[in-house]
Amino acid sequence: MEISKPLILVTNDDGIMSKGLSALIKFIRPLGEIVVMAPDSARSGSSGAITSCEPIHYTQVRQDVGLSVYKCSGTPVDCIKVALNKVCSHKPDLVLAGINHGDNSATNVYNSGTMGAVIEGCLDGIKSIAFSLCDHEMNADFEPQAIIVRQITTWALQHELPELTCLNVNFPKLLDYKGLKVCKMARGYWTRELDPCPRRGDDHYFWLGGEYIELNVDDGESDRRALAEGYVAITPTKLDVTDYQYMDKLQREMDLLS
Amino acid sequence: MEISKPLILVTNDDGIMSKGLSALIKFIRPLGEIVVMAPDSARSGSSGAITSCEPIHYTQVRQDVGLSVYKCSGTPVDCIKVALNKVCSHKPDLVLAGINHGDNSATNVYNSGTMGAVIEGCLDGIKSIAFSLCDHEMNADFEPQAIIVRQITTWALQHELPELTCLNVNFPKLLDYKGLKVCKMARGYWTRELDPCPRRGDDHYFWLGGEYIELNVDDGESDRRALAEGYVAITPTKLDVTDYQYMDKLQREMDLLS
Repeated sequence: MEISKPLILVTNDDGIMSKGLSALIKFIRPLGEIVVMAPDSARSGSSGAITSCEPIHYTQVRQDVGLSVYKCSGTPVDCIKVALNKVCSHKPDLVLAGINHGDNSATNVYNSGTMGAVIEGCLDGIKSIAFSLCDHEMNADFEPQAIIVRQITTWALQHELPELTCLNVNFPKLLDYKGLKVCKMARGYWTRELDPCPRRGDDHYFWLGGEYIELNVDDGESDRRALAEGYVAITPTKLDVTDYQYMDKLQREMDLLS
Repeated sequence: MEISKPLILVTNDDGIMSKGLSALIKFIRPLGEIVVMAPDSARSGSSGAITSCEPIHYTQVRQDVGLSVYKCSGTPVDCIKVALNKVCSHKPDLVLAGINHGDNSATNVYNSGTMGAVIEGCLDGIKSIAFSLCDHEMNADFEPQAIIVRQITTWALQHELPELTCLNVNFPKLLDYKGLKVCKMARGYWTRELDPCPRRGDDHYFWLGGEYIELNVDDGESDRRALAEGYVAITPTKLDVTDYQYMDKLQREMDLLS
């Protein structure tokens, strides 16, 4: 019996002690054998970074029935690599990351450690889903997400995703949701990104901050719009980033150079 | 006269002291006003990571006619943000990253700090190009790339790229090239990624390493294949990662959950 339970690998980028990680583990624990490999401290904004200049290490911090928990000195991507190479008895059925404290919709996917981990899982041929809540607070309330996280996880265990496509699920900060909306990635960019923190009179020190400017606010299909309207936004995310439509034109132009 | 020169922002992920960065600056210097903002040490594998848990700072290290050079404590993406917010007098005409010591083709784009910087430039609405050489060596020979780097940079200054598309240019380690080939991103994954480096008897310490397994070796249009055949591989890279073809099917399945 025990052997046929699905194996679910879980990580995040807020670190092993975050409330969102505990919530995710609690929500999905009935659904399978859970292996958690999470960064030993916060790794927000780590994107798909890997640790290339120093060694990485991991330590087991808990062993329970159906639940093994490890912390790792590396990034979320490192966590997936270490778990797959050293800890998982076989290839997991699912990689989950989150629940992130903060929005990973729109072009934020490019800096998100949560999405970095999910992309790594997907590259390794495993169905992979990121869960994020649009609330940065340490004590954010994750209970409203319980049912939907469990529904989506159950669905993902029973269905296939397209090859090299993962899911980016973002929850608005609400107690109840209008429904699940499949979305496209909103466009936008950050502005006024550097908050001064001068040090001993040197004003070349800054905290990264800023304001996100949305470019396609009126696009009813964008994930930002869905969140603003109270939907859970599910953005199916492709890993093949080739701009196929541009290939022929670019080749003709490059042929003129040589 | 001086005012009409194009402004080119340059960064990399191997750090301010790398030979590949010096080569890139030398090759493109006749083409415009150059601002360099590069990490103060190697940041290989930093992907789209941003520094969120500590302040970042920058220092000018050189000022010459048409060339300003700064080092920054942050990641390649941080470098672009700092340069755009604090150093550039106006929006650059071009963001260039490299020349990277090592291959950034195929799915390596997901871990590449060089591509992280270029994606950041592109998100900011600037034409952006990554240059990489398939040679990790500190003293790699970048001279064979001089003409083509200058040709592509000149072309990019004179032509538009599609919105939210950047270019990922990889050079094989050769003295001469068969030509410029516009490619799609090859697929693959890393295996046997952890090289043990036990510490005081604790065998949970590892260096990240491994071997890249190619999945579509026979695809004549893939960047890996082009490199293997001696071409310069140019992969046009889209930033909109929405899997549009999957949206309707996924929405129908999500509708069944709620």
